[in-house]
Amino acid sequence: MERRGPDRRQGGAFRARPRGGRREAEAGENELTLLYGLHAVTEALANPRREFTRLFVTENALRRLGAPPATLRPEIVGPHDIARLLPPDAVHQGVLAEALPLVPPALEDLEPEGIVLALDQITDPHNVGAILRTASAFAVKAVIVPVRHSPAATGVLAKAASGALEHVPIVPVRNLADALIALAERGFLRVGLDSEGEGTLEDVALRGPLVLALGAEGKGLRERVRHSCDVVARIDLPGAIKSLNVSNAAAIALSIVHRKVVKSEK
Amino acid sequence: MERRGPDRRQGGAFRARPRGGRREAEAGENELTLLYGLHAVTEALANPRREFTRLFVTENALRRLGAPPATLRPEIVGPHDIARLLPPDAVHQGVLAEALPLVPPALEDLEPEGIVLALDQITDPHNVGAILRTASAFAVKAVIVPVRHSPAATGVLAKAASGALEHVPIVPVRNLADALIALAERGFLRVGLDSEGEGTLEDVALRGPLVLALGAEGKGLRERVRHSCDVVARIDLPGAIKSLNVSNAAAIALSIVHRKVVKSEK
Repeated sequence: MERRGPDRRQGGAFRARPRGGRREAEAGENELTLLYGLHAVTEALANPRREFTRLFVTENALRRLGAPPATLRPEIVGPHDIARLLPPDAVHQGVLAEALPLVPPALEDLEPEGIVLALDQITDPHNVGAILRTASAFAVKAVIVPVRHSPAATGVLAKAASGALEHVPIVPVRNLADALIALAERGFLRVGLDSEGEGTLEDVALRGPLVLALGAEGKGLRERVRHSCDVVARIDLPGAIKSLNVSNAAAIALSIVHRKVVKSEK
Repeated sequence: MERRGPDRRQGGAFRARPRGGRREAEAGENELTLLYGLHAVTEALANPRREFTRLFVTENALRRLGAPPATLRPEIVGPHDIARLLPPDAVHQGVLAEALPLVPPALEDLEPEGIVLALDQITDPHNVGAILRTASAFAVKAVIVPVRHSPAATGVLAKAASGALEHVPIVPVRNLADALIALAERGFLRVGLDSEGEGTLEDVALRGPLVLALGAEGKGLRERVRHSCDVVARIDLPGAIKSLNVSNAAAIALSIVHRKVVKSEK
């Protein structure tokens, strides 16, 4: 997508085409957000903090969509008009919205309670989107990501998140290790997840508020991020394959941490 | 991919190109298996039950790959030669193998022990591959799928499974509900997972051997499959979003079932 000036809300028709090539926008970039698919757009329309610039929708999809805000005029288009704005295999279900990015809370504004996730350079937008969706299901308070080497909260990520972008704030930070140190000063227990962890997540002592740090597949947590954790734990895997897809690992870890921290406090 | 006759092992160069269009091969189809990516091919080469027909590899990738079987001559090609046999965004890492499908065990041959998965018309090959990978990590004994409306164990699925195809047998059956009934007669507890389940997976009584049935996102378990379960349980989700990506749901469910059934037996 092109960067736009102050007049970006005026825009010509269908300017939302993502730029070709392999580079994806990063978390720190302040571009327009593309939301497609019924779940993602319905949840966004229900979020009073979302400001929309355009809504493209087919006649069929309009009937299945919640009422748009009074200030937003849906533009009725054909499915092919939407398809050519998106990657070839995007399942858009006849709806595409263009919105301003949500304004993220500052790290300092996070309340010291519950569970926070920190994603260390997880670059695949499908995985980050699926992690956000599961984070929302477990009532995670925020997801912290480094500004660089994290995908922007748009397009493929937003679709995989299936509406979770509207519920879980993404907090981009310059330096993830520094962010963990700042959270520790405010009472958070810092737990890193790594296949070489000293104990299993089931067995280590956990308590809230807690920040769970996850690294990318293969690479794991970067050295300084790992050293900024109070404890590094692994998921107990008895089988032949000892590594999981990162969103599957996040899901299992969140389920365990939620049971041990949040439920036990009730 | 085209169906091939008895001479399929003779084949001309690069005949493995998948057919265009949206239709994917299904679980019951007896076509050649395409395996790409270093993990998937390395695990397959280490599996004595795999019979290969071709191995295309770049010079670079050959150095990182385990030694191929003595009877298999690697064909050195360029990365673009491999790329044009695969979908546009396939991460092949310079290696593509063509193999015969593994011969699945019959349902009757499954030992009544441990955990078995049953996937009810989960059609997305990325999700089924990720589920297989996690199933392998939790030492699941087999994954049962209906012959129809299940993706074949090749290509995208094999890549997402990251080698798990070599460790977890996939058992295609004509009718999934009948298969559950047959497993019950041999001592398996049948547990369905559904967001409308009567209790949470944490709270219901579980014991092995156990078969865990999962439905597709949105659709859930089909009526007759659900009625063939002894208990239908849900994952306890406290947050705003109440549904998970199916591979994330499978991962959490396997983690809980493994802890409650396999670990408690030790």
